[in-house]
Amino acid sequence: MSAELLSRIRVVLSRTSHPGNIGATARAMKTMGLSVLYLVAPKKPIDAEAEAMASGADDLLRGARLCASLDEALQGTVYALAVSARRRELAHASADARSAVQELVAAAQAGEVALVFGTEMSGLTNEEILQCSAAAHIPADPDYSSLNLAAAVQVMAYEVRVAALGAQAFAPPEFAPARHEDIENLYVHLEQSLLASGFLDPANPRRLMPRLRRLFGRSRLEQEEVNILRGMLKAFDKNT
Amino acid sequence: MSAELLSRIRVVLSRTSHPGNIGATARAMKTMGLSVLYLVAPKKPIDAEAEAMASGADDLLRGARLCASLDEALQGTVYALAVSARRRELAHASADARSAVQELVAAAQAGEVALVFGTEMSGLTNEEILQCSAAAHIPADPDYSSLNLAAAVQVMAYEVRVAALGAQAFAPPEFAPARHEDIENLYVHLEQSLLASGFLDPANPRRLMPRLRRLFGRSRLEQEEVNILRGMLKAFDKNT
Repeated sequence: MSAELLSRIRVVLSRTSHPGNIGATARAMKTMGLSVLYLVAPKKPIDAEAEAMASGADDLLRGARLCASLDEALQGTVYALAVSARRRELAHASADARSAVQELVAAAQAGEVALVFGTEMSGLTNEEILQCSAAAHIPADPDYSSLNLAAAVQVMAYEVRVAALGAQAFAPPEFAPARHEDIENLYVHLEQSLLASGFLDPANPRRLMPRLRRLFGRSRLEQEEVNILRGMLKAFDKNT
Repeated sequence: MSAELLSRIRVVLSRTSHPGNIGATARAMKTMGLSVLYLVAPKKPIDAEAEAMASGADDLLRGARLCASLDEALQGTVYALAVSARRRELAHASADARSAVQELVAAAQAGEVALVFGTEMSGLTNEEILQCSAAAHIPADPDYSSLNLAAAVQVMAYEVRVAALGAQAFAPPEFAPARHEDIENLYVHLEQSLLASGFLDPANPRRLMPRLRRLFGRSRLEQEEVNILRGMLKAFDKNT
């Protein structure tokens, strides 16, 4: 059971600079039983150093899926967790790694999920974080929060494994969670309706859409809720 | 308090082969607020690669104490935990990392303690394990338990930090939560807007309002989010 659960948890690396870190990430994943790796626009292709660092986990490198955007890498997922070694100011409120992973593993009972990591230098952008369902930080020392990328993956993969091994404790969710692409389409519709209503002023957007992403990201939308919200917007649109 | 606790927890590396791994260990330790490093008979002295891998944690390398034996490195400790990525047959019964670290941190309230790691290739000898108070394993995948030394230190140091932070892990919320009465007023407004738009049919309400309560209840609305949602509804109302 836990092996099937782990197979639904993909690791997404966005815009990684050093192939060696991709290799070390593959090794860290494999030690914890994770096997599905997505690479979003890596700066350099997988090379000999990546393979050396993978050290027996090169099967994960060979199976890695290359994507042009984070949006593409999140297709088909019902939950995505943005990981940072720092608390962020904006975007989603950030949960600590342990409790965030409990959510992630619970969501994996219902479908595919993702752990998302940004670049070595600056992590994820706020735009990327807002494409995810939630954000988590590894509670590093604020005076020196410089976790190596593969070290951050190692910590999160370890938390995932511990949670998945104990996952019988989690009941599967009662309702079908919405998929990433359906939620993105909801945001497109919402933005159009708000523009048409005049509430969203393109000249002065006041971070309205990011705020709404943060709210709905936190609420873990279900399929039927997305349908209801789309229906509401359609009804409001008619009157515009 | 937790800083003082962390200062009592030393990391002991026994007979490490590669100086680079000692550097990467220093970095892993420092990210989690650990600062005391003991080296038992390393195969090679600290070199430029070790310093490169330490990446800003070279103060830990400079402060590292060099010992001839594990016995010497454990002088003054009241508790020592032998760490392995595999369950061991002999020596101590091995606890999982999380519960073992609870013991370690509890012991650190009373004095100095140690986390002890063996060589890259074969870990600790049984003789070394039996010089420690207890043994712990990181629950790696039995089919591929090849954690890099610094990755194992990272996982254990993370567990130590989470345990030492203890109750502080529950941070207060970052934003002001909405009050009950404000949320109730939002539902009143929402219902009126949906009636006016025609989406909510009083003759056939289809549990719409309970579903929306369920959605927003789950999302734990903030004060400002309630204001934004009320503003959106007002903009939609104008067109009805």
